Amino acid sequence: MATAEDEKQMSSLSLEEKEKKKEEKKAAKEAEKAAKAAKQAELAAQRGQKQAVMTQPEEGDPVKDKYGDAPMVQSSQEVSRPYTDIGQIDASWAGKEVLCRARVHNVRGKGKGCFLVLRHRTATIQVLLFVNETTVTKGMVKYASQLPRESIVDVEGVVTVPESPIASCSQSEVEVHGHGIKAISRAAVLPFEITDAAHSEAEIKAAAEKGELLVTVGQDLRLNNRFLDLRTPANQAIFKIQSGVCQLFKDCLLKQGFQEIHTPKIIAGSSEGGSAVFKVDYMGTEACLAQSPQLYKQMAICADFDRVFEVGPVFRAENSWTHRHLCEFMGLDFEMAIHQHYFEVLDVVENLFETVFHGLAEQFAKDMAVVAEQYPFEKAVFKRLRLTFAEAIQILQENGYPDIDPLDDLSTEMERNLGKLIKQKYDTDFYIIHRYPLGVRPFYTMPCADDPRLSNSYDVFIRGEEIISGAQRIHSAELLEERAKACGIPIPSVQAYIDSFKYGAPPHGGVGVGLERVVMLYLGLDNIRKTSLFPRDPKRIMP
Amino acid sequence: MATAEDEKQMSSLSLEEKEKKKEEKKAAKEAEKAAKAAKQAELAAQRGQKQAVMTQPEEGDPVKDKYGDAPMVQSSQEVSRPYTDIGQIDASWAGKEVLCRARVHNVRGKGKGCFLVLRHRTATIQVLLFVNETTVTKGMVKYASQLPRESIVDVEGVVTVPESPIASCSQSEVEVHGHGIKAISRAAVLPFEITDAAHSEAEIKAAAEKGELLVTVGQDLRLNNRFLDLRTPANQAIFKIQSGVCQLFKDCLLKQGFQEIHTPKIIAGSSEGGSAVFKVDYMGTEACLAQSPQLYKQMAICADFDRVFEVGPVFRAENSWTHRHLCEFMGLDFEMAIHQHYFEVLDVVENLFETVFHGLAEQFAKDMAVVAEQYPFEKAVFKRLRLTFAEAIQILQENGYPDIDPLDDLSTEMERNLGKLIKQKYDTDFYIIHRYPLGVRPFYTMPCADDPRLSNSYDVFIRGEEIISGAQRIHSAELLEERAKACGIPIPSVQAYIDSFKYGAPPHGGVGVGLERVVMLYLGLDNIRKTSLFPRDPKRIMP
Repeated sequence: MATAEDEKQMSSLSLEEKEKKKEEKKAAKEAEKAAKAAKQAELAAQRGQKQAVMTQPEEGDPVKDKYGDAPMVQSSQEVSRPYTDIGQIDASWAGKEVLCRARVHNVRGKGKGCFLVLRHRTATIQVLLFVNETTVTKGMVKYASQLPRESIVDVEGVVTVPESPIASCSQSEVEVHGHGIKAISRAAVLPFEITDAAHSEAEIKAAAEKGELLVTVGQDLRLNNRFLDLRTPANQAIFKIQSGVCQLFKDCLLKQGFQEIHTPKIIAGSSEGGSAVFKVDYMGTEACLAQSPQLYKQMAICADFDRVFEVGPVFRAENSWTHRHLCEFMGLDFEMAIHQHYFEVLDVVENLFETVFHGLAEQFAKDMAVVAEQYPFEKAVFKRLRLTFAEAIQILQENGYPDIDPLDDLSTEMERNLGKLIKQKYDTDFYIIHRYPLGVRPFYTMPCADDPRLSNSYDVFIRGEEIISGAQRIHSAELLEERAKACGIPIPSVQAYIDSFKYGAPPHGGVGVGLERVVMLYLGLDNIRKTSLFPRDPKRIMP
Repeated sequence: MATAEDEKQMSSLSLEEKEKKKEEKKAAKEAEKAAKAAKQAELAAQRGQKQAVMTQPEEGDPVKDKYGDAPMVQSSQEVSRPYTDIGQIDASWAGKEVLCRARVHNVRGKGKGCFLVLRHRTATIQVLLFVNETTVTKGMVKYASQLPRESIVDVEGVVTVPESPIASCSQSEVEVHGHGIKAISRAAVLPFEITDAAHSEAEIKAAAEKGELLVTVGQDLRLNNRFLDLRTPANQAIFKIQSGVCQLFKDCLLKQGFQEIHTPKIIAGSSEGGSAVFKVDYMGTEACLAQSPQLYKQMAICADFDRVFEVGPVFRAENSWTHRHLCEFMGLDFEMAIHQHYFEVLDVVENLFETVFHGLAEQFAKDMAVVAEQYPFEKAVFKRLRLTFAEAIQILQENGYPDIDPLDDLSTEMERNLGKLIKQKYDTDFYIIHRYPLGVRPFYTMPCADDPRLSNSYDVFIRGEEIISGAQRIHSAELLEERAKACGIPIPSVQAYIDSFKYGAPPHGGVGVGLERVVMLYLGLDNIRKTSLFPRDPKRIMP
């Protein structure tokens, strides 16, 4: 069904077009860069072919069992000694023998020794391999020195506390003195370096000021090789936080008596009433992908499920080219029976976001710091604040929009400015606007009892951008039919929907949340593609 | 990609055809029944129209504020006194004044009194309304007596402990002496009665033996009105249990270091290598719906996510007409890096199902009892048991299948018999079979190191039916290409997949679980449509 969101989009087309052009310029620049990078990679590959790379230990080496490429892991033996995650090692491990599996983040041979930086997820640690009389030979050092970056290795060694901290590693207080190294999986020449993909704007600027040009990796090149791009520490952290938001969301709702449901994504007909649907051929019948679980979660309420939530994909075939629209995204939806008032829904919404904001701050502080290293952001402030649409209009009228229409929707630009004004006045990045004009909401929205021009609806914002749209829904089949007619919707197209309220329907309301938007806005990121694992936009369907 | 499952299906076509015919016969019978029911409903509606139904209190009634249809709930006031869930009331509430919102499950006027049974989810409670001098008038009793079943009402009254238990209600130790009743939402004439939809086979049989014919409700009529069908106590319980399985699954994996991911459901191209895909028009480009998150969860592993899971829809455009296939179902998938052996995956699988089995038995005992009232089942027994495919073959060879081929797959019938034999021998309904023939598994399955005819793969069973398929995957790009060629797969169609393993790939394995199957088999139900909220099969896409 058409949402308030849809309509908002229509009204901000010119802004979108601007964004689109910006994106296109960026894309062109990136394509150029990518071509350069590919050329470099090819040259590097040619250089690599010239040198025979060492993959096996030297004949007769007394420690030949301790280095060289391992046979392919094929389940021919079980693990006989435990592996240690490099992220767990701290100074208390000093003197302990460890076996670690991690990637070669960096490697530098230097005479009789070799410095390796191993990386696993957001952690890096230094490994030293230096020739000695018993455990490390020249052969081992040579082998290690030639390992390609991003290869996966098993390293054996002893944890040591260096005299001065190792600034270049996240594990700065410890290092490993290695005496064994085996490649588990070798990496080919990379389309871009993970270190280059991990630079912050500040680093690039600081280097530029010193006359140094850091390699940057554009959005298209990243997304074309998303499984590499995702290896950067910031991306590792972003998706740990995304998983965290899901768990906090679910746990908080379960505690408030909700139950998880799964509704079908292939639905009959060519549309739910809106136009931006993806069409599917269903065994020869015309079908489409659900733009929201709206009808189904409402049917669950009509089936007495009381309080339901769903975490599932939502599909919008919109040709939107903005920093905050995707063609497929994760919807966190809930719907609940109410006794009297939609404030019962808003109570749940506020509990939910209080839990999410506080839970993230408590459980994911480390990951947030990792994100901030590459993408600095101000911590988001949570307060409970509900303003009516009329109050929001008044704030805007008093601050640069004197002629704003109190029965029209807000543009994206107005919403952003409102966010800034609310932050100044109330010191919160989170707030709810309710009692929107009836005319800007979907036909199934319950009108206000005291003013038929307004509706029992609400939007929820973080940093001036909408993350939630919702309302009390009409539970009376008669009123629903009346409103559909008033909105010019052909009744046959919504008859089944209307009929489901004929057999005793509880008053109810709910919300739809965009997961990627919540994560983007909470972390103050500039593009929703950063918080989607494999983003889908009008031009991108790969990988 | 084609899974072992696909191939199994091909080999059991004749069995499927039989099931299809059975289903078609059933459907024909049901259509007949539905027509009858519709006719009855129409007659009932005509009868209803003849009598003017009372919706408002009688003029001058001293308690007229206490009964009659309530104005539409429209958020004009907040809740001023708390509501009590009828399921919570027990004898300790005796003497307490309560306000309850629930459905009229049954109503019977009798002179100066009226017996109501209210229902909310799996609970029913008796309400008595008898004329007295102060609080209950003839008008109130008359109003209540005329309320249509399935209407939602607010009832005020006092909790009482009856002299003898009320056998017909789940809340048998208490009843409510009412003194107020208002309809919140009236129900129209129903396509079928919820009580009829809730009969067990045993009840129908027992009635038939007494010469009484109970009305039964066929599968198609139920599914056409799923939001009504879902109101039966057994269905309420089934979907609480389904939500429970999801939470137990997620919590258990989160505790073992997994993180939740969300992968795209619209993917490029016309197929993942298999043929049974739903095609989507993606902004003019040919795309399809993901048959599994296989490639994407493997890319997450290549991106160092270590241990990932996803709970998401899976789409199979298969013309399968069996009790256990759906065209859209919920996949519980996980994928994890392993150090040496796929037994590391099986350890997680066993922990997972031990948690699910025990968690359900502990937390959902009451709901399981509710399901068993309509659909009796034997409690499923969990033990850790791993048999090799060769051992499974031997059991079958010794028990009626002397000529079975140890390098071919098992038919559905063999699997069921194996389940029975294993239950006899080992007393478990849960077990794992591993080391399947390489030839019956997808091309990306890692071959066994010690026998190239076998593979590092496994299936997991409950009550002789497969719920999980999985394997160690090939993490070497070279071997993957070799196996694809050997399986006759055109390399260009899988080049991107192969390439994602070129930049250092951790050894890994995983599983895909079908949520609806787990719930169906755990509860010993006979059809997967009973455990899908709004099932999708080759003929059903509505509602």
